Amino acid sequence: MGILFEVLKQDSRTRARLGRLTTPHGVVETPVFMPVGTQATVKTMTPEEVRDLGARIILSNTYHLYLRPGHELVREAGGLHRFMHWNGPILTDSGGFQVFSLAPLRKLSDEGVEFRSHIDGSRHFFTPEKVVAVQEALGSDIAMVLDECAPYPCSYKDARTATERTTRWAARARAAWNSDGATALFGIIQGSVYRDLREESTRALVDLDFPGYGIGGLSVGEPKPLMYEALEWVIPLIPEDRPRYLMGVGSPDCLFEGIARGVDMFDCVLPTRMARHGAVFTHTGRLVVRNAPNARDFGPLDPGCTCYTCRHFSRAYVHHLLRAGEVLGIRLTTIHNLHFLLDLARRIREAIAEDRFHSLKEQFLAACLTPA
Amino acid sequence: MGILFEVLKQDSRTRARLGRLTTPHGVVETPVFMPVGTQATVKTMTPEEVRDLGARIILSNTYHLYLRPGHELVREAGGLHRFMHWNGPILTDSGGFQVFSLAPLRKLSDEGVEFRSHIDGSRHFFTPEKVVAVQEALGSDIAMVLDECAPYPCSYKDARTATERTTRWAARARAAWNSDGATALFGIIQGSVYRDLREESTRALVDLDFPGYGIGGLSVGEPKPLMYEALEWVIPLIPEDRPRYLMGVGSPDCLFEGIARGVDMFDCVLPTRMARHGAVFTHTGRLVVRNAPNARDFGPLDPGCTCYTCRHFSRAYVHHLLRAGEVLGIRLTTIHNLHFLLDLARRIREAIAEDRFHSLKEQFLAACLTPA
Repeated sequence: MGILFEVLKQDSRTRARLGRLTTPHGVVETPVFMPVGTQATVKTMTPEEVRDLGARIILSNTYHLYLRPGHELVREAGGLHRFMHWNGPILTDSGGFQVFSLAPLRKLSDEGVEFRSHIDGSRHFFTPEKVVAVQEALGSDIAMVLDECAPYPCSYKDARTATERTTRWAARARAAWNSDGATALFGIIQGSVYRDLREESTRALVDLDFPGYGIGGLSVGEPKPLMYEALEWVIPLIPEDRPRYLMGVGSPDCLFEGIARGVDMFDCVLPTRMARHGAVFTHTGRLVVRNAPNARDFGPLDPGCTCYTCRHFSRAYVHHLLRAGEVLGIRLTTIHNLHFLLDLARRIREAIAEDRFHSLKEQFLAACLTPA
Repeated sequence: MGILFEVLKQDSRTRARLGRLTTPHGVVETPVFMPVGTQATVKTMTPEEVRDLGARIILSNTYHLYLRPGHELVREAGGLHRFMHWNGPILTDSGGFQVFSLAPLRKLSDEGVEFRSHIDGSRHFFTPEKVVAVQEALGSDIAMVLDECAPYPCSYKDARTATERTTRWAARARAAWNSDGATALFGIIQGSVYRDLREESTRALVDLDFPGYGIGGLSVGEPKPLMYEALEWVIPLIPEDRPRYLMGVGSPDCLFEGIARGVDMFDCVLPTRMARHGAVFTHTGRLVVRNAPNARDFGPLDPGCTCYTCRHFSRAYVHHLLRAGEVLGIRLTTIHNLHFLLDLARRIREAIAEDRFHSLKEQFLAACLTPA
């Protein structure tokens, strides 16, 4: 049980690599983009639709599921896979990021973090041990340790405090984790934008010997070059045989830049959130199909795209649906956006296999006039 | 072009009948339930999903499409079928009912009806001729005449005025209609709950010789027995070879009672509207899955149901999605409710073919404890 990760091929010009992640619920080729199903559903999509778009692993959120419907209810339902009818692998976020971004009135101590539910104001207490137990109850294939996610900007002193606490919590989570069970556990590297903290964090977590490593606390407002630099600091310190997961990142350009620096896994709400706001990815950049110029445009969202939406519907129709507040509108933009990223990840894997990742990256980024 | 209607079999114990309606976009077996796609989309559903549930004809709304995105835009897009990617027959409501129920500040005259858009307050004028032209621009397979829909209750005097105006408008619509084109035109019988008005209306419209007849002004608040009585007044006066369409009606019990009285076609927003409010049809009656008792119920919405939702998801999961405000929740309840009615219509057709409609009706209504 647990996971197995193998590197199948190393790109010759960058740190990009092709890998295979074997989980209790199936095999995932990496680099991989994981659609986000925060509340046990990838927003607007059925599980079959998510799979048909090429997704092989999805992410769900411990914080949300713990609050509603509750992990004990999910356990009673036979686990998260059965509850939501998704038979592939599931990675669950620890809830650390959500507690620090969503929950009001949190009280932080070395023991853990007290917070109020953003739904009903009720009080809750997360410890590193509890968060592992919740994820084991959900039946996640990959659980994440509870971490303290520092905001950006963040003073060196605060960043050090958060990073050191994250490391202590990681050790407790590691000890609480049933390493013989079906759930693998990933550590989370913190350290804000400070090189020594990032390196210390990585070394300490690697000493704890996790099956994989999340790189957290990035894409929280810092300029993209800083994020790329942080990846260059930490990734060389992670053992080659462990998957590296860049948390909460998934725009097309970041996918390329992260993979070039050795990232294997990504997740991001961007495709589904953009879709709800009436915006879509195209090969020349972001298009706000909700905007007026699309009202009489009878062409597809992205010429050349092979997704269901682009094969059957015009910009004018999708525009009409979005303006009219029709659910099908956000379904069609969601399908398109998820297809865009999942297909991009597939093309990237193909390019790495054929040792032409670098030229695909150059071509793609040159065509993209307005990054998402 | 236009439509062809054939009665294939007459039930021996009731006025129920099996029919076949041939349209420019395909053949429809009757009695038929038509899902409603008000704004050029059956709410939350793709056209393929609607078809896979067994729908062979859908309804859309002239009033809504005229206001947004506009019938000229739809014509430019290649017509409504192409615009919304539905290749089966489409019936469009005339907008009469919507003008009288949705639009504020209407001014009614013999010439037509002036109203303000419920979207942006802009002024518009519908005449019987214009409403036919709009529906021909949309490319409807079946258009409906502009009618004046009397509210319930309604004085005899007001009902007579509305009924006589509806008849005069029907004659103008009939004259404006291109009877050699691809769009068939149905008259609409009015007359509120007054027998002489209903009969006069029917006779006058039959004199105008429409390809089919809508029965309007019912299910507007009157008790169901009054509606059934009105059907018994008018249907015997409609020629056997013309389809009879009971407008805006589609609860399971009304389906049975209408069919027993000779109705061939139904449409209703009930299945999709109930779904959005978290309620579903079951063979024992209405279930509000959004309500608390379903939170830990791991059984299907309706035991024995073969729809996608019931095959793969529990009440607990659907309840969770609805409570969490997730779109998939209303998708799953919509699929279930449309399946319920479309499958019921299919079973009714089968029963008429085998001359056991009456016993199916008795069985079904006996099991149903809480009609929708």
